[in-house]
Amino acid sequence: MSDDIVGVLERELGAGAIVGPGHERLDDYGRDESPLPEFYPPLCAVLVESVDMASAVLRICAERKVPVTPRGAGSGMCGGALPVAGGIVLSTERMKKILEIDAGDLIARVEPGVITGHLQEAVEAQQLFYPPDPASLEYCSIGGNVATNAGGPRAFKYGVTREYILGLEVALMGGEVLRCGRRTAKGVTSYDLVAGFVGTEGTFGVITELLVKLLPYPPAAATILGVFSDVPTAGAAINALLRDGLRPRVLELADKNSVDYVRPKTRYRFPANAGAIVLIEVDGEPDTMTMQMEKIGMRCDDLGAIDVLAATEPAERRAVWEARRLISPALKEGWKIKVNEDVCVPRGRIVEMLARVDRVSAETGIATAVFGHAGDGNLHVNLLSNDNPDDPDVRAKMWAAAEQVFIHCVALGGTLSGEHGVGLTKRDYIPLEQSEQLIGWQRKWKAMWDPQGLLNPGKRLPLQRNACSE
Amino acid sequence: MSDDIVGVLERELGAGAIVGPGHERLDDYGRDESPLPEFYPPLCAVLVESVDMASAVLRICAERKVPVTPRGAGSGMCGGALPVAGGIVLSTERMKKILEIDAGDLIARVEPGVITGHLQEAVEAQQLFYPPDPASLEYCSIGGNVATNAGGPRAFKYGVTREYILGLEVALMGGEVLRCGRRTAKGVTSYDLVAGFVGTEGTFGVITELLVKLLPYPPAAATILGVFSDVPTAGAAINALLRDGLRPRVLELADKNSVDYVRPKTRYRFPANAGAIVLIEVDGEPDTMTMQMEKIGMRCDDLGAIDVLAATEPAERRAVWEARRLISPALKEGWKIKVNEDVCVPRGRIVEMLARVDRVSAETGIATAVFGHAGDGNLHVNLLSNDNPDDPDVRAKMWAAAEQVFIHCVALGGTLSGEHGVGLTKRDYIPLEQSEQLIGWQRKWKAMWDPQGLLNPGKRLPLQRNACSE
Repeated sequence: MSDDIVGVLERELGAGAIVGPGHERLDDYGRDESPLPEFYPPLCAVLVESVDMASAVLRICAERKVPVTPRGAGSGMCGGALPVAGGIVLSTERMKKILEIDAGDLIARVEPGVITGHLQEAVEAQQLFYPPDPASLEYCSIGGNVATNAGGPRAFKYGVTREYILGLEVALMGGEVLRCGRRTAKGVTSYDLVAGFVGTEGTFGVITELLVKLLPYPPAAATILGVFSDVPTAGAAINALLRDGLRPRVLELADKNSVDYVRPKTRYRFPANAGAIVLIEVDGEPDTMTMQMEKIGMRCDDLGAIDVLAATEPAERRAVWEARRLISPALKEGWKIKVNEDVCVPRGRIVEMLARVDRVSAETGIATAVFGHAGDGNLHVNLLSNDNPDDPDVRAKMWAAAEQVFIHCVALGGTLSGEHGVGLTKRDYIPLEQSEQLIGWQRKWKAMWDPQGLLNPGKRLPLQRNACSE
Repeated sequence: MSDDIVGVLERELGAGAIVGPGHERLDDYGRDESPLPEFYPPLCAVLVESVDMASAVLRICAERKVPVTPRGAGSGMCGGALPVAGGIVLSTERMKKILEIDAGDLIARVEPGVITGHLQEAVEAQQLFYPPDPASLEYCSIGGNVATNAGGPRAFKYGVTREYILGLEVALMGGEVLRCGRRTAKGVTSYDLVAGFVGTEGTFGVITELLVKLLPYPPAAATILGVFSDVPTAGAAINALLRDGLRPRVLELADKNSVDYVRPKTRYRFPANAGAIVLIEVDGEPDTMTMQMEKIGMRCDDLGAIDVLAATEPAERRAVWEARRLISPALKEGWKIKVNEDVCVPRGRIVEMLARVDRVSAETGIATAVFGHAGDGNLHVNLLSNDNPDDPDVRAKMWAAAEQVFIHCVALGGTLSGEHGVGLTKRDYIPLEQSEQLIGWQRKWKAMWDPQGLLNPGKRLPLQRNACSE
């Protein structure tokens, strides 16, 4: 039945919507930003432009039992958008309209393919604020952000994507279209279907429209970079700042390896004994920013900082950010293989987790660099190698090291992913963290929305050894 | 089978856990804070002290097909804890232990019967902060707050209960115990079962333990009361303050009727022409509080306030709060019937909603007073009468007026409840707001957790005309 699926989709949706066999872009739909050597080209990709088109694809494929893998901008880091079971890719990349921005209601209504950074620019032009700021914001889509419940540095104060999604229109496998949620800031009359869809990585339904909560734009901000001699001192400083009652919007940490790799790239000249950096950003009233900045800077001095940079003006703030922002590009430039995991530990265990990563590095001989959202305990553990990325033994060694990191993280009460998702790459490690019972309830929930298991199959939940016993 | 359920529960759980037939307190378990004249005494109430006891009750009752109605502190306003289908009440009132407060991880682990205000005191003693502040916080329980997704004034800045629940232990109908969620600030490896349980009013499961997210305690706050001549001027002032980029933790509004009822109760002497009040509270750095307070006060002057009160010291801040805090007691004292609805409209429609409530009052002859959380568009519409509360005609007239309020709210894009819940009293109005399709998906989700429909039956979802056709 699936042999003619491309032809059926072309007839029903128009050839202009199909990237089919022989098209130079088809292979692109078999890749994302995950560090996988394999790629998984679909039978075709359908570039839908409306909820009706998305619904039609899901109806046609359900009738023919063809798997459908939803895809936003393809910027996911865990393989969530890869059609590993074959079938077709349903891409929302053409659904880029910002339908409405309402400054009175503090909401925006958007299509899923809108690039997150474009949404931010559009609302900021009206002095409004959409806080979630994943590192990929210049090329990731808001629909993908909902699918992974994306975070970013500002999540420490403002929360993750889930906190900003008030309503969703979702096309379900089979073609049914469901609108859930509300336009109001609060509301408790429905079971929380909206939160239930967030973070499901396209396994429950395909998001076709979103109602997004906005805030007034914070009129001013200050950025402070504290340079410390080592991670324990930096970690103690973070704890002390929080105990003071400080509520920064950003609270980032990077370890000595990160500092050493970024050191040659920055205009800022790091002290020779720099062993960790803490980046703090506060926002609020303009009148108070300089005072707050100076107070935090002096507190960092008290807490053992060997140098402090600080700024309130946007251009100078960008310069302060540079040391943090350039870490990831510096690692990409310096290493052939860069596996970026995003474990999350209880806040109080960050320093211990960093020590354990150092231990994994020593035991495996694999270089590491760790930076991330310390306020949330969310650490990007980068495993680095200049061995041949196509060598299966090399890859196996990298994944074995990643598994050690996962095991340490879970032992500290943590979770395998703070913001990237599970997708394909972490799927089989889920039993390290979750009971078979918990996984079983998730399977039931998935089956409620997609009883045939055709929507993004092979993702998020570990494969079942014996599917017949279910 | 259900005739001997009280005896079975007594034998298995001990007579000390049972409030049974003839007990002077039994009728109390048939009432809550809702304005219903009827009461619904259960066969018995079981006062569980552990997850094992809760699990045993749910196993025994499932085996005998006896309905179970979970109950926290009984402070709900919509009848959510009333055993309307008979059976037994499962009360968590004895599960009052704060198991853990961890200032490093910024979390608390608590039993569901902990009084919300007690939790706040305990964490504040360690300079920590649990923001949700429902008006009932001195007697409501944290488990009930999760069941209704409780809000309160501070929700405008800090969000509702859902945003603070990281993990749950839940006893399911049949006796299974499920632990879901995490100890970390962020995490995306599981479908969001935790958010799925929040706000389900005990229809999915019985919460037996909670992991609660905490924040550092804000070191300082300032409270400003702006008195305006009418609601439109007050509403315009609120919009202007938000357009300035102000992010107060509290942004409350009360209408002329509220002011007139509270006027004789307050130490503050309202101006004769007071027609609305706006209460604003900001928090943050101590050094900046006086400056912020003065700035907001002056801005209120510019925006047409006829008087402004402001304070930063706790005792004086309480005095500023008095005008808002005493509204509800003043209404209770002055009227035999006070039906408090909590509609929520898109923020930009607040002034229009207040005008429509005035119209309902004029058309029905029923007095009203409206106050609430303007920042979130969440308005407590009080319908007031001194007619005989036991007269069914009087009650029918009150409910007819409430229905008119609901209809106007939905016409403005609003929802029937911002924070109180649905329970029994709003159940049959849900189709005003939600499609049959949306209700249908909620029924499926409910059936996933409780296929026999024995847990808190008759709540949240409209009754089905023809259950056989399902």
